[in-house]
Amino acid sequence: MTYCCGLLVREGLVMIADTRTNAGLDNVSTFRKLHVFSKPGERILAVAAAGNLAISQSVLSTLNEGLPDSPEGEPETLMNAPSMFKAAQRIGRAIRHINATEGPALRAEDILAEVSFLFGGQIKGEKMRLFMVYPAGNFIECTIDTPYLQIGEHKYGKPVLDRAMHYDIELYEALKTGLISMDSTMRSNLGVGLPLDVLVVRDGVCDADLHHRVEAGEPYFHDLRSRWSAALRAAHKNIPLPPYKTQSQS
Amino acid sequence: MTYCCGLLVREGLVMIADTRTNAGLDNVSTFRKLHVFSKPGERILAVAAAGNLAISQSVLSTLNEGLPDSPEGEPETLMNAPSMFKAAQRIGRAIRHINATEGPALRAEDILAEVSFLFGGQIKGEKMRLFMVYPAGNFIECTIDTPYLQIGEHKYGKPVLDRAMHYDIELYEALKTGLISMDSTMRSNLGVGLPLDVLVVRDGVCDADLHHRVEAGEPYFHDLRSRWSAALRAAHKNIPLPPYKTQSQS
Repeated sequence: MTYCCGLLVREGLVMIADTRTNAGLDNVSTFRKLHVFSKPGERILAVAAAGNLAISQSVLSTLNEGLPDSPEGEPETLMNAPSMFKAAQRIGRAIRHINATEGPALRAEDILAEVSFLFGGQIKGEKMRLFMVYPAGNFIECTIDTPYLQIGEHKYGKPVLDRAMHYDIELYEALKTGLISMDSTMRSNLGVGLPLDVLVVRDGVCDADLHHRVEAGEPYFHDLRSRWSAALRAAHKNIPLPPYKTQSQS
Repeated sequence: MTYCCGLLVREGLVMIADTRTNAGLDNVSTFRKLHVFSKPGERILAVAAAGNLAISQSVLSTLNEGLPDSPEGEPETLMNAPSMFKAAQRIGRAIRHINATEGPALRAEDILAEVSFLFGGQIKGEKMRLFMVYPAGNFIECTIDTPYLQIGEHKYGKPVLDRAMHYDIELYEALKTGLISMDSTMRSNLGVGLPLDVLVVRDGVCDADLHHRVEAGEPYFHDLRSRWSAALRAAHKNIPLPPYKTQSQS
């Protein structure tokens, strides 16, 4: 399993991904799922992956080496995509290409070959953008009404985003919200786990403001988890008991 | 969609079910999903249903009229089941019977015919018990380590149960916790909606302590929702911002 979220606010972009992969419960590993491609000052592109690891890694390698259906001349990669939109299209094409070559053999073994991606960042001269690319290679773009996108195990961490996220939230407040969303998910699904990879990019800079790995036992994240738990317990306690009278209608 | 939860604590049992049904987003209705069978002082049995409504209603009618494979004499129903365990087995048999008669025609139309049930209550002389019956008719029983079971859209409302529920919680505290879990679910999934049906049964009484419908706009539930929201916002605000320094490693 996996949980990644991307938060797009006025001040910039936050992307967070866990690192747990599992092939069954008895085969758990740590793999980086948040990949950053950048040429500081020119472009910063971040891709977070969920789904079949072999497929998502092959998609990324393809986006690094160049798409097989590139026209003559320079191979089409993420790093030379002329716009964020065209870069998102290239991710979709890479998924379709890998699906076409790998899919039949995996389906024959009943192996789930689906992948999905969050893709966010900025190319100099363009606005900052965030996309979610579906397993079929089609994609949607994040807008200010719902300024976040999620892939993987999205349900446990969605309520906190729904309540706290809005487009005008301060950039590191958004990061904090994303970390709480991660915490909620990790508590309920063992398939999502530490360490977390975090990227923060300020609008207009085309470089990472923060590119950090949150390791297990890190004091800030540990404190965030304890405070959130304690606050939820207190909130729960402060709500009065239901006043309903016995109305046996059985 | 549907969300039902059953909470089994030392003092008794709480069962809560929403009432929203939908056949597509454009065909939304209200149907009771929490059904109570009781003979006060002798037994109280509650069934909450998720999944295909035609199937779950047919299962309930079968449990009322008697299983078709009942031996000679009195038809086997929920109300004459000699134990909670045998009653749970009868629910499983009723599911398998309806699946056998209805399943093929529904599958031919690609209609999802799955149902699952929470089944809780007490028969005089037995302890209080709570079961979850799966679509295949097999079932598990709630134990004190994790004193709740859920069917339907269970993920959004699970974190609050994981944090707040334990076997020694007071009975109406458990109800409150269940209502918060319902609130979290309704906020994130439009397929789960008011009114809610609530049943509270005290251990040893074999009758409803409370059998209530929480309607939209009811002051207590409205207040619970507002307080929970405000407390979450405050909790969020009280967590310090991440102290991470810029560590561009891109």
